[in-house]
Amino acid sequence: MSSDKSYFEMAGLESRDRYKLLTGLVVPRPIGWIGTRRQDGSFNLAPFSFFNVISSSPPTVIFSGGRHSDRPKDSVALAEESGEFSVNIVSESVATAMSTTSASFGPDDDEFQIAGLTPVRGQIISAPLVAESPANLECVVHQVLEIGEGVSRLVVGRVVAAHVEDDVLDGTRILSDQLQAIGRMAGNSYITTSQIFDIERPG
Amino acid sequence: MSSDKSYFEMAGLESRDRYKLLTGLVVPRPIGWIGTRRQDGSFNLAPFSFFNVISSSPPTVIFSGGRHSDRPKDSVALAEESGEFSVNIVSESVATAMSTTSASFGPDDDEFQIAGLTPVRGQIISAPLVAESPANLECVVHQVLEIGEGVSRLVVGRVVAAHVEDDVLDGTRILSDQLQAIGRMAGNSYITTSQIFDIERPG
Repeated sequence: MSSDKSYFEMAGLESRDRYKLLTGLVVPRPIGWIGTRRQDGSFNLAPFSFFNVISSSPPTVIFSGGRHSDRPKDSVALAEESGEFSVNIVSESVATAMSTTSASFGPDDDEFQIAGLTPVRGQIISAPLVAESPANLECVVHQVLEIGEGVSRLVVGRVVAAHVEDDVLDGTRILSDQLQAIGRMAGNSYITTSQIFDIERPG
Repeated sequence: MSSDKSYFEMAGLESRDRYKLLTGLVVPRPIGWIGTRRQDGSFNLAPFSFFNVISSSPPTVIFSGGRHSDRPKDSVALAEESGEFSVNIVSESVATAMSTTSASFGPDDDEFQIAGLTPVRGQIISAPLVAESPANLECVVHQVLEIGEGVSRLVVGRVVAAHVEDDVLDGTRILSDQLQAIGRMAGNSYITTSQIFDIERPG
Protein backbone atom coordinates (compact mmCIF):
# COMPACT_ATOMS: atom_id res chain seq x y z
CA MET A 1 0.00 0.00 0.00
CA SER A 2 0.96 3.60 -0.22
CA SER A 3 3.28 4.71 2.54
CA ASP A 4 0.68 6.81 4.33
CA LYS A 5 -1.50 3.86 5.30
CA SER A 6 -1.17 1.74 8.44
CA TYR A 7 -1.46 -2.02 8.02
CA PHE A 8 -3.35 -4.23 10.49
CA GLU A 9 -3.64 -8.00 10.42
CA MET A 10 -6.94 -8.91 12.04
CA ALA A 11 -5.52 -12.02 13.70
CA GLY A 12 -3.06 -9.81 15.59
CA LEU A 13 -5.68 -7.43 17.00
CA GLU A 14 -7.65 -7.56 20.22
CA SER A 15 -11.38 -8.09 19.76
CA ARG A 16 -12.10 -4.53 20.88
CA ASP A 17 -9.72 -3.05 18.28
CA ARG A 18 -11.23 -5.12 15.47
CA TYR A 19 -14.64 -3.83 16.54
CA LYS A 20 -13.46 -0.22 16.54
CA LEU A 21 -11.82 -0.49 13.10
CA LEU A 22 -14.72 -2.27 11.40
CA THR A 23 -17.54 -0.20 12.90
CA GLY A 24 -15.59 3.00 12.20
CA LEU A 25 -14.83 2.13 8.56
CA VAL A 26 -18.09 0.51 7.45
CA VAL A 27 -20.32 3.56 7.78
CA PRO A 28 -23.03 4.78 7.63
CA ARG A 29 -24.99 1.66 8.61
CA PRO A 30 -28.79 1.45 8.41
CA ILE A 31 -30.56 0.60 11.66
CA GLY A 32 -32.92 -2.35 11.91
CA TRP A 33 -35.04 -1.90 15.02
CA ILE A 34 -36.01 -5.53 15.51
CA GLY A 35 -39.30 -6.46 17.18
CA THR A 36 -39.89 -10.04 18.33
CA ARG A 37 -42.49 -11.87 20.39
CA ARG A 38 -41.78 -14.28 23.23
CA GLN A 39 -43.64 -17.55 23.69
CA ASP A 40 -45.56 -16.05 26.62
CA GLY A 41 -46.84 -13.27 24.33
CA SER A 42 -44.60 -10.49 25.69
CA PHE A 43 -42.49 -8.30 23.41
CA ASN A 44 -38.82 -7.57 22.75
CA LEU A 45 -37.36 -4.65 20.82
CA ALA A 46 -33.70 -3.80 20.11
CA PRO A 47 -31.70 -1.94 17.44
CA PHE A 48 -29.12 -3.58 15.17
CA SER A 49 -26.75 -1.87 12.75
CA PHE A 50 -25.30 -5.16 11.53
CA PHE A 51 -28.39 -5.08 9.32
CA ASN A 52 -29.28 -4.44 5.68
CA VAL A 53 -31.47 -5.36 2.74
CA ILE A 54 -29.62 -7.94 0.61
CA SER A 55 -32.13 -8.63 -2.17
CA SER A 56 -35.44 -7.30 -3.45
CA SER A 57 -36.34 -10.43 -5.46
CA PRO A 58 -36.96 -12.26 -3.25
CA PRO A 59 -37.31 -9.39 -0.73
CA THR A 60 -34.71 -10.25 1.90
CA VAL A 61 -33.06 -8.57 4.90
CA ILE A 62 -30.37 -9.75 7.31
CA PHE A 63 -29.35 -8.84 10.85
CA SER A 64 -26.79 -10.36 13.14
CA GLY A 65 -25.97 -10.33 16.80
CA GLY A 66 -23.45 -11.84 19.14
CA ARG A 67 -24.19 -14.34 21.86
CA HIS A 68 -21.58 -13.33 24.35
CA SER A 69 -21.78 -9.56 24.03
CA ASP A 70 -22.30 -7.35 27.04
CA ARG A 71 -26.06 -7.32 26.58
CA PRO A 72 -28.26 -10.26 25.72
CA LYS A 73 -29.08 -10.50 22.04
CA ASP A 74 -32.55 -11.85 22.72
CA SER A 75 -33.72 -10.71 19.30
CA VAL A 76 -31.68 -13.30 17.45
CA ALA A 77 -32.83 -16.14 19.71
CA LEU A 78 -36.46 -15.01 19.65
CA ALA A 79 -36.51 -14.57 15.86
CA GLU A 80 -35.10 -18.06 15.48
CA GLU A 81 -37.52 -19.54 18.01
CA SER A 82 -40.67 -17.84 16.73
CA GLY A 83 -39.71 -17.71 13.04
CA GLU A 84 -40.76 -14.06 12.80
CA PHE A 85 -39.52 -10.52 13.38
CA SER A 86 -40.41 -6.96 12.47
CA VAL A 87 -38.01 -4.33 11.16
CA ASN A 88 -38.97 -0.85 12.27
CA ILE A 89 -37.42 2.11 10.46
CA VAL A 90 -35.69 4.60 12.76
CA SER A 91 -36.43 8.23 11.95
CA GLU A 92 -35.11 11.26 13.83
CA SER A 93 -38.43 11.42 15.72
CA VAL A 94 -37.86 8.01 17.36
CA ALA A 95 -34.06 8.20 17.74
CA THR A 96 -34.10 8.64 21.52
CA ALA A 97 -36.61 5.84 22.03
CA MET A 98 -34.48 3.58 19.81
CA SER A 99 -31.41 4.33 21.92
CA THR A 100 -33.38 3.59 25.10
CA THR A 101 -34.13 0.10 23.81
CA SER A 102 -30.41 -0.57 23.23
CA ALA A 103 -29.75 -0.80 26.97
CA SER A 104 -29.41 -4.04 28.89
CA PHE A 105 -32.77 -5.19 30.15
CA GLY A 106 -33.82 -8.40 31.78
CA PRO A 107 -35.27 -11.12 29.57
CA ASP A 108 -38.76 -10.32 30.86
CA ASP A 109 -38.68 -6.55 30.45
CA ASP A 110 -40.90 -4.96 27.86
CA GLU A 111 -38.84 -2.45 25.87
CA PHE A 112 -42.00 -0.98 24.33
CA GLN A 113 -43.29 0.03 27.75
CA ILE A 114 -39.88 1.25 28.96
CA ALA A 115 -39.42 3.47 25.88
CA GLY A 116 -43.03 4.65 25.74
CA LEU A 117 -43.78 2.97 22.40
CA THR A 118 -46.94 1.39 21.06
CA PRO A 119 -46.76 -2.22 19.86
CA VAL A 120 -49.06 -3.08 16.97
CA ARG A 121 -49.65 -6.61 15.76
CA GLY A 122 -48.61 -7.37 12.20
CA GLN A 123 -51.08 -8.34 9.50
CA ILE A 124 -49.19 -11.54 8.68
CA ILE A 125 -46.80 -12.05 11.61
CA SER A 126 -47.55 -11.85 15.32
CA ALA A 127 -44.29 -10.08 16.23
CA PRO A 128 -44.94 -6.48 17.32
CA LEU A 129 -44.48 -3.45 15.05
CA VAL A 130 -43.55 -0.01 16.43
CA ALA A 131 -46.53 2.27 15.71
CA GLU A 132 -44.34 5.39 16.08
CA SER A 133 -41.89 4.32 13.33
CA PRO A 134 -42.58 5.83 9.91
CA ALA A 135 -42.41 2.37 8.33
CA ASN A 136 -42.41 -1.28 9.38
CA LEU A 137 -41.46 -4.49 7.60
CA GLU A 138 -43.03 -7.83 8.50
CA CYS A 139 -40.45 -10.61 8.13
CA VAL A 140 -40.39 -14.39 8.26
CA VAL A 141 -37.12 -16.14 9.15
CA HIS A 142 -35.70 -17.93 6.13
CA GLN A 143 -32.40 -19.16 7.53
CA VAL A 144 -30.07 -18.64 10.51
CA LEU A 145 -26.33 -18.90 9.93
CA GLU A 146 -23.52 -19.43 12.42
CA ILE A 147 -20.84 -16.79 11.93
CA GLY A 148 -17.87 -18.77 13.18
CA GLU A 149 -17.33 -20.51 16.50
CA GLY A 150 -20.94 -20.10 17.60
CA VAL A 151 -20.24 -16.50 18.55
CA SER A 152 -22.54 -14.57 16.22
CA ARG A 153 -25.61 -15.60 14.32
CA LEU A 154 -26.88 -14.14 11.05
CA VAL A 155 -30.65 -14.08 10.63
CA VAL A 156 -31.84 -14.08 7.00
CA GLY A 157 -35.47 -12.99 6.71
CA ARG A 158 -37.98 -12.69 3.90
CA VAL A 159 -39.96 -9.47 3.91
CA VAL A 160 -43.61 -10.42 3.52
CA ALA A 161 -45.30 -7.05 4.06
CA ALA A 162 -44.60 -3.36 4.59
CA HIS A 163 -46.47 -0.55 6.35
CA VAL A 164 -45.43 2.94 5.27
CA GLU A 165 -46.69 6.32 6.42
CA ASP A 166 -48.57 7.99 3.59
CA ASP A 167 -46.62 11.22 3.81
CA VAL A 168 -43.28 9.48 3.06
CA LEU A 169 -44.78 7.79 -0.04
CA ASP A 170 -45.08 8.84 -3.67
CA GLY A 171 -46.53 5.64 -5.16
CA THR A 172 -43.89 3.10 -4.13
CA ARG A 173 -41.10 5.70 -4.09
CA ILE A 174 -39.90 6.76 -0.64
CA LEU A 175 -39.47 10.48 0.02
CA SER A 176 -36.23 10.44 2.00
CA ASP A 177 -36.57 14.05 3.14
CA GLN A 178 -39.90 13.10 4.75
CA LEU A 179 -38.67 9.76 6.09
CA GLN A 180 -35.73 11.37 7.92
CA ALA A 181 -34.07 8.04 8.63
CA ILE A 182 -30.93 8.06 10.74
CA GLY A 183 -27.80 5.94 10.22
CA ARG A 184 -25.29 4.49 12.63
CA MET A 185 -21.68 5.62 12.84
CA ALA A 186 -19.09 4.33 15.32
CA GLY A 187 -19.56 4.58 19.10
CA ASN A 188 -22.67 6.50 20.16
CA SER A 189 -22.75 8.52 16.95
CA TYR A 190 -25.48 8.71 14.37
CA ILE A 191 -26.09 10.75 11.23
CA THR A 192 -29.13 12.29 9.68
CA THR A 193 -29.90 11.65 6.02
CA SER A 194 -30.42 15.32 5.23
CA GLN A 195 -27.13 15.93 3.33
CA ILE A 196 -28.18 14.29 0.07
CA PHE A 197 -26.39 14.67 -3.24
CA ASP A 198 -26.90 12.96 -6.59
CA ILE A 199 -24.37 11.38 -8.90
CA GLU A 200 -25.65 10.76 -12.40
CA ARG A 201 -25.32 7.04 -13.11
CA PRO A 202 -23.00 6.49 -16.06
CA GLY A 203 -23.38 4.23 -19.07
CA MET B 1 -51.57 -0.39 11.80
CA SER B 2 -52.46 3.22 12.37
CA SER B 3 -54.75 4.63 9.72
CA ASP B 4 -52.13 6.87 8.16
CA LYS B 5 -49.98 4.03 6.89
CA SER B 6 -50.33 2.23 3.57
CA TYR B 7 -50.09 -1.54 3.62
CA PHE B 8 -48.23 -3.53 0.94
CA GLU B 9 -47.97 -7.30 0.65
CA MET B 10 -44.68 -8.07 -1.04
CA ALA B 11 -46.14 -11.00 -3.00
CA GLY B 12 -48.57 -8.63 -4.68
CA LEU B 13 -45.94 -6.12 -5.85
CA GLU B 14 -43.97 -5.95 -9.07
CA SER B 15 -40.24 -6.58 -8.66
CA ARG B 16 -39.49 -2.93 -9.44
CA ASP B 17 -41.86 -1.68 -6.71
CA ARG B 18 -40.37 -4.03 -4.11
CA TYR B 19 -36.93 -2.69 -5.04
CA LYS B 20 -38.07 0.93 -4.69
CA LEU B 21 -39.73 0.35 -1.32
CA LEU B 22 -36.85 -1.62 0.22
CA THR B 23 -34.00 0.55 -1.08
CA GLY B 24 -35.90 3.69 -0.08
CA LEU B 25 -36.69 2.50 3.46
CA VAL B 26 -33.44 0.74 4.41
CA VAL B 27 -31.18 3.78 4.38
CA PRO B 28 -28.47 4.96 4.63
CA ARG B 29 -26.53 1.93 3.35
CA PRO B 30 -22.72 1.65 3.53
CA ILE B 31 -20.96 1.09 0.21
CA GLY B 32 -18.62 -1.83 -0.33
CA TRP B 33 -16.51 -1.12 -3.39
CA ILE B 34 -15.56 -4.70 -4.21
CA GLY B 35 -12.28 -5.50 -5.96
CA THR B 36 -11.73 -8.95 -7.45
CA ARG B 37 -9.13 -10.62 -9.67
CA ARG B 38 -9.87 -12.73 -12.73
CA GLN B 39 -8.06 -15.96 -13.50
CA ASP B 40 -6.09 -14.20 -16.27
CA GLY B 41 -4.80 -11.68 -13.71
CA SER B 42 -6.99 -8.75 -14.80
CA PHE B 43 -9.08 -6.76 -12.33
CA ASN B 44 -12.75 -6.07 -11.61
CA LEU B 45 -14.19 -3.33 -9.41
CA ALA B 46 -17.84 -2.50 -8.62
CA PRO B 47 -19.84 -0.89 -5.79
CA PHE B 48 -22.44 -2.72 -3.69
CA SER B 49 -24.80 -1.21 -1.12
CA PHE B 50 -26.29 -4.59 -0.22
CA PHE B 51 -23.21 -4.76 1.98
CA ASN B 52 -22.30 -4.48 5.68
CA VAL B 53 -20.12 -5.70 8.51
CA ILE B 54 -22.00 -8.44 10.39
CA SER B 55 -19.49 -9.41 13.10
CA SER B 56 -16.17 -8.26 14.50
CA SER B 57 -15.30 -11.57 16.21
CA PRO B 58 -14.71 -13.19 13.83
CA PRO B 59 -14.34 -10.10 11.60
CA THR B 60 -16.94 -10.68 8.89
CA VAL B 61 -18.56 -8.70 6.07
CA ILE B 62 -21.27 -9.62 3.56
CA PHE B 63 -22.27 -8.37 0.12
CA SER B 64 -24.84 -9.64 -2.31
CA GLY B 65 -25.65 -9.26 -5.96
CA GLY B 66 -28.14 -10.53 -8.46
CA ARG B 67 -27.37 -12.80 -11.35
CA HIS B 68 -29.94 -11.59 -13.78
CA SER B 69 -29.77 -7.86 -13.16
CA ASP B 70 -29.23 -5.39 -15.97
CA ARG B 71 -25.48 -5.38 -15.45
CA PRO B 72 -23.26 -8.37 -14.86
CA LYS B 73 -22.49 -8.96 -11.19
CA ASP B 74 -19.04 -10.27 -11.98
CA SER B 75 -17.88 -9.47 -8.46
CA VAL B 76 -19.96 -12.20 -6.88
CA ALA B 77 -18.84 -14.83 -9.41
CA LEU B 78 -15.19 -13.75 -9.23
CA ALA B 79 -15.15 -13.68 -5.41
CA GLU B 80 -16.61 -17.17 -5.39
CA GLU B 81 -14.19 -18.43 -8.04
CA SER B 82 -11.02 -16.89 -6.59
CA GLY B 83 -12.00 -17.10 -2.91
CA GLU B 84 -10.91 -13.50 -2.32
CA PHE B 85 -12.11 -9.91 -2.56
CA SER B 86 -11.18 -6.47 -1.33
CA VAL B 87 -13.57 -3.94 0.24
CA ASN B 88 -12.57 -0.37 -0.53
CA ILE B 89 -14.09 2.41 1.54
CA VAL B 90 -15.80 5.13 -0.50
CA SER B 91 -15.01 8.65 0.66
CA GLU B 92 -16.31 11.87 -0.92
CA SER B 93 -12.98 12.16 -2.79
CA VAL B 94 -13.57 8.93 -4.76
CA ALA B 95 -17.37 9.21 -5.11
CA THR B 96 -17.32 10.01 -8.82
CA ALA B 97 -14.83 7.24 -9.60
CA MET B 98 -16.99 4.80 -7.61
CA SER B 99 -20.04 5.79 -9.63
CA THR B 100 -18.08 5.34 -12.88
CA THR B 101 -17.37 1.72 -11.92
CA SER B 102 -21.08 1.04 -11.41
CA ALA B 103 -21.75 1.18 -15.15
CA SER B 104 -22.11 -1.85 -17.37
CA PHE B 105 -18.75 -2.91 -18.75
CA GLY B 106 -17.73 -5.96 -20.69
CA PRO B 107 -16.31 -8.89 -18.74
CA ASP B 108 -12.80 -8.01 -19.96
CA ASP B 109 -12.86 -4.30 -19.18
CA ASP B 110 -10.62 -3.00 -16.41
CA GLU B 111 -12.67 -0.67 -14.20
CA PHE B 112 -9.50 0.62 -12.53
CA GLN B 113 -8.19 1.93 -15.85
CA ILE B 114 -11.59 3.31 -16.94
CA ALA B 115 -12.04 5.23 -13.66
CA GLY B 116 -8.40 6.35 -13.40
CA LEU B 117 -7.70 4.35 -10.25
CA THR B 118 -4.54 2.61 -9.06
CA PRO B 119 -4.77 -1.10 -8.21
CA VAL B 120 -2.47 -2.25 -5.40
CA ARG B 121 -1.92 -5.90 -4.56
CA GLY B 122 -2.98 -6.98 -1.08
CA GLN B 123 -0.53 -8.24 1.53
CA ILE B 124 -2.46 -11.46 2.01
CA ILE B 125 -4.85 -11.67 -0.93
CA SER B 126 -4.09 -11.12 -4.61
CA ALA B 127 -7.32 -9.24 -5.35
CA PRO B 128 -6.64 -5.56 -6.09
CA LEU B 129 -7.07 -2.76 -3.54
CA VAL B 130 -7.96 0.81 -4.59
CA ALA B 131 -4.96 2.98 -3.64
CA GLU B 132 -7.11 6.13 -3.72
CA SER B 133 -9.59 4.83 -1.10
CA PRO B 134 -8.88 6.01 2.47
CA ALA B 135 -9.09 2.41 3.70
CA ASN B 136 -9.13 -1.12 2.32
CA LEU B 137 -10.12 -4.48 3.77
CA GLU B 138 -8.59 -7.73 2.54
CA CYS B 139 -11.19 -10.50 2.66
CA VAL B 140 -11.30 -14.25 2.15
CA VAL B 141 -14.58 -15.87 1.11
CA HIS B 142 -16.02 -17.93 3.94
CA GLN B 143 -19.32 -19.00 2.42
CA VAL B 144 -21.64 -18.17 -0.48
CA LEU B 145 -25.39 -18.44 0.07
CA GLU B 146 -28.20 -18.69 -2.46
CA ILE B 147 -30.85 -16.10 -1.71
CA GLY B 148 -33.84 -17.92 -3.14
CA GLU B 149 -34.42 -19.32 -6.60
CA GLY B 150 -30.79 -18.85 -7.69
CA VAL B 151 -31.45 -15.17 -8.28
CA SER B 152 -29.12 -13.49 -5.79
CA ARG B 153 -26.06 -14.74 -3.99
CA LEU B 154 -24.79 -13.60 -0.60
CA VAL B 155 -21.02 -13.62 -0.18
CA VAL B 156 -19.84 -13.97 3.44
CA GLY B 157 -16.19 -12.96 3.83
CA ARG B 158 -13.70 -12.95 6.67
CA VAL B 159 -11.67 -9.76 6.96
CA VAL B 160 -8.03 -10.79 7.27
CA ALA B 161 -6.31 -7.40 7.05
CA ALA B 162 -6.97 -3.66 6.89
CA HIS B 163 -5.07 -0.72 5.38
CA VAL B 164 -6.07 2.65 6.81
CA GLU B 165 -4.78 6.12 5.99
CA ASP B 166 -2.89 7.48 8.98
CA ASP B 167 -4.80 10.74 9.07
CA VAL B 168 -8.15 8.98 9.65
CA LEU B 169 -6.68 6.99 12.56
CA ASP B 170 -6.38 7.67 16.25
CA GLY B 171 -4.96 4.33 17.44
CA THR B 172 -7.64 1.94 16.18
CA ARG B 173 -10.40 4.57 16.39
CA ILE B 174 -11.58 5.95 13.05
CA LEU B 175 -11.97 9.72 12.76
CA SER B 176 -15.20 9.91 10.78
CA ASP B 177 -14.82 13.61 9.99
CA GLN B 178 -11.49 12.78 8.30
CA LEU B 179 -12.76 9.59 6.64
CA GLN B 180 -15.69 11.41 4.98
CA ALA B 181 -17.38 8.18 3.95
CA ILE B 182 -20.52 8.43 1.85
CA GLY B 183 -23.67 6.31 2.15
CA ARG B 184 -26.19 5.12 -0.38
CA MET B 185 -29.79 6.30 -0.48
CA ALA B 186 -32.41 5.29 -3.08
CA GLY B 187 -31.92 5.89 -6.80
CA ASN B 188 -28.79 7.87 -7.69
CA SER B 189 -28.69 9.57 -4.29
CA TYR B 190 -25.96 9.46 -1.70
CA ILE B 191 -25.34 11.20 1.62
CA THR B 192 -22.28 12.57 3.30
CA THR B 193 -21.51 11.56 6.89
CA SER B 194 -20.97 15.12 8.03
CA GLN B 195 -24.23 15.59 9.98
CA ILE B 196 -23.21 13.63 13.06
CA PHE B 197 -25.00 13.72 16.40
CA ASP B 198 -24.50 11.70 19.55
CA ILE B 199 -27.05 9.92 21.72
CA GLU B 200 -25.77 8.96 25.15
CA ARG B 201 -26.12 5.19 25.49
CA PRO B 202 -28.45 4.37 28.37
CA GLY B 203 -28.05 1.83 31.17
